[in-house]
Amino acid sequence: MQRHTGRDMWEAEVCQSPRMGSVILGVDGGASNTVCVCIPAAMPFNDPLPVLSRTVAGCSNQNSVGEDRARETLERVMSQALLKARRRRSNVCAVCLAVAGVNHPIDQQRMLDWLREIFPSHVKLFVENDAVAALASGTMGKLHGCVLIAGTGTIAYGFTSDGREARAAGAGPVLGDWGSGYGISAQAMTAVVRAYDGRGPETVLTNNILDFLGLASPDELIGWTYEDQSWARIADLLPVVVESAESGDEVANKILHNSVGELASSVKAVVQRLELGGEDGKHPFPLVMVGKVLEANKRWDIGKEVIDCVTKHYPGAYPIHPKVEPAVGAALLAWNAIASELDGDIRSVQ
Amino acid sequence: MQRHTGRDMWEAEVCQSPRMGSVILGVDGGASNTVCVCIPAAMPFNDPLPVLSRTVAGCSNQNSVGEDRARETLERVMSQALLKARRRRSNVCAVCLAVAGVNHPIDQQRMLDWLREIFPSHVKLFVENDAVAALASGTMGKLHGCVLIAGTGTIAYGFTSDGREARAAGAGPVLGDWGSGYGISAQAMTAVVRAYDGRGPETVLTNNILDFLGLASPDELIGWTYEDQSWARIADLLPVVVESAESGDEVANKILHNSVGELASSVKAVVQRLELGGEDGKHPFPLVMVGKVLEANKRWDIGKEVIDCVTKHYPGAYPIHPKVEPAVGAALLAWNAIASELDGDIRSVQ
Repeated sequence: MQRHTGRDMWEAEVCQSPRMGSVILGVDGGASNTVCVCIPAAMPFNDPLPVLSRTVAGCSNQNSVGEDRARETLERVMSQALLKARRRRSNVCAVCLAVAGVNHPIDQQRMLDWLREIFPSHVKLFVENDAVAALASGTMGKLHGCVLIAGTGTIAYGFTSDGREARAAGAGPVLGDWGSGYGISAQAMTAVVRAYDGRGPETVLTNNILDFLGLASPDELIGWTYEDQSWARIADLLPVVVESAESGDEVANKILHNSVGELASSVKAVVQRLELGGEDGKHPFPLVMVGKVLEANKRWDIGKEVIDCVTKHYPGAYPIHPKVEPAVGAALLAWNAIASELDGDIRSVQ
Repeated sequence: MQRHTGRDMWEAEVCQSPRMGSVILGVDGGASNTVCVCIPAAMPFNDPLPVLSRTVAGCSNQNSVGEDRARETLERVMSQALLKARRRRSNVCAVCLAVAGVNHPIDQQRMLDWLREIFPSHVKLFVENDAVAALASGTMGKLHGCVLIAGTGTIAYGFTSDGREARAAGAGPVLGDWGSGYGISAQAMTAVVRAYDGRGPETVLTNNILDFLGLASPDELIGWTYEDQSWARIADLLPVVVESAESGDEVANKILHNSVGELASSVKAVVQRLELGGEDGKHPFPLVMVGKVLEANKRWDIGKEVIDCVTKHYPGAYPIHPKVEPAVGAALLAWNAIASELDGDIRSVQ
């Protein structure tokens, strides 16, 4: 195995004992940061799960930070997790990278090729969109069912038991992910501008958003959005929109209802294409719900509304709010894939 | 007058004769480039107007390129226009800068202060949003009526004869300028993604947009938008959307109808706030129409639809499609202001 990097991040591993047990690395690379966990490969299914180490780094979405920086971040977060767990690369039996920005088989293959330069050929490698790890975090690593993520962005992603997959949304703000935290906040700011220039009804969003941002007038909003167009910064307005809706504001309520419609429509599109509900639409399947938009608020519970909307069409959908983070989901995905393979081997021997 | 810049752009003016006649500079700084024209101050109203020189530079929207680069571009385009017209700064009697990104009195004052460092105190200075120059380009410099610009972005801007002003939209893509070229194109790309992942109806936009961009599949659209998020690049899809609508595609037609509604709503908001139509809404006022979205196409004429929509409420609105460019409008605005002042002086003497 040859690796030539400016700084060899793996140098420290010579200090570690090679006799320690096998491990699996799970990486979740989201819009704002990257988390890596290291779990034992021979893992008893305990609650809580035995996580040996956890490390965090910045964004590793190659669409946002470029390929080089994304790879450097991923390599660093993995080498640090191994160091912290006192393991070497030779202890690793599987790696699952679940990263935002992997939208195409070409992205996936390039990432796999790169990963193969780091880990020798016997190590099982998996590269998935970060949504897949979120699904696995709710299903103990089994890829079956549908996950809905709604944080800064939004995506719905689903798998059938026989490995077919489908996704909806997750295309970013230009391409209309209106149910996301960004989408809700951008619509709320738009409503403020429209009320100000006479194109839309008055709304308490005006005072609430200006107060929150420390601005004096709606025309300062234009400068504020130009200053820094990061989606997460705009998505941070979400609690203000929810509070405004909870106080009875019609404009804010309409925005949240639209968001529910958009999010449910993403889930239904995936479920329909994969026929997760079976022929009669009533078969049970997991619906994993992840992200701050779907967390319960005081009165306005976007997640619950989405579930109600989906179960009207697919009564078999059973919602799961994962107890573990997506990085653990990624590790469980790899664990589950190895276990299934072993299971297959045992069965073929029998 | 003291000026200290790294490169003194004004050095060349020592070659020019100071005896040449007085001139006015008009600058239009839009989303993609900056145009400066130099016209004689003692201008007979000929058709075509006697433009002494015209120079072009890159973007001078300080929100896009930063304050330093915006100022450098503006200074360069003005010094080159004077050089080309064989005039000096001492020949200049008025300057009108009409630049995108001037959204607030603070922006305006800072720009005026900066301009005053270049031109001595007797030179009349005007700083306006670029929409104001577009209005002036249709009214021979008189600030009365409403202008609708719909190119990459969109804004409606209006003035009463007694100097009150109002605007609507022009807040950029985050804040929902949906009637703009960017807005129309982003909605069309969103429709392609929605059709692809099962959230929306099939549309010929899919084939037409993929063909135009040389992409093989809708999931490549995500990567394409991330590559370069400049609004003008996305707005370039406008002709594809119009052609798709003209071929009878319902999705494309709906997007264009929405755009008409949005654009008309901006005009109506400005007209209503300024009462340009008088108490009965029937008073005549100019409605200046500028930008590629409003130019006539084969069958689908967005500009005409917007005018029909506005004149239903305000039958006195008379549409003007300017014959001169906004930079000339900016120069005419300054010319008109000086002429009004002289007129006032003459009247006060009488």
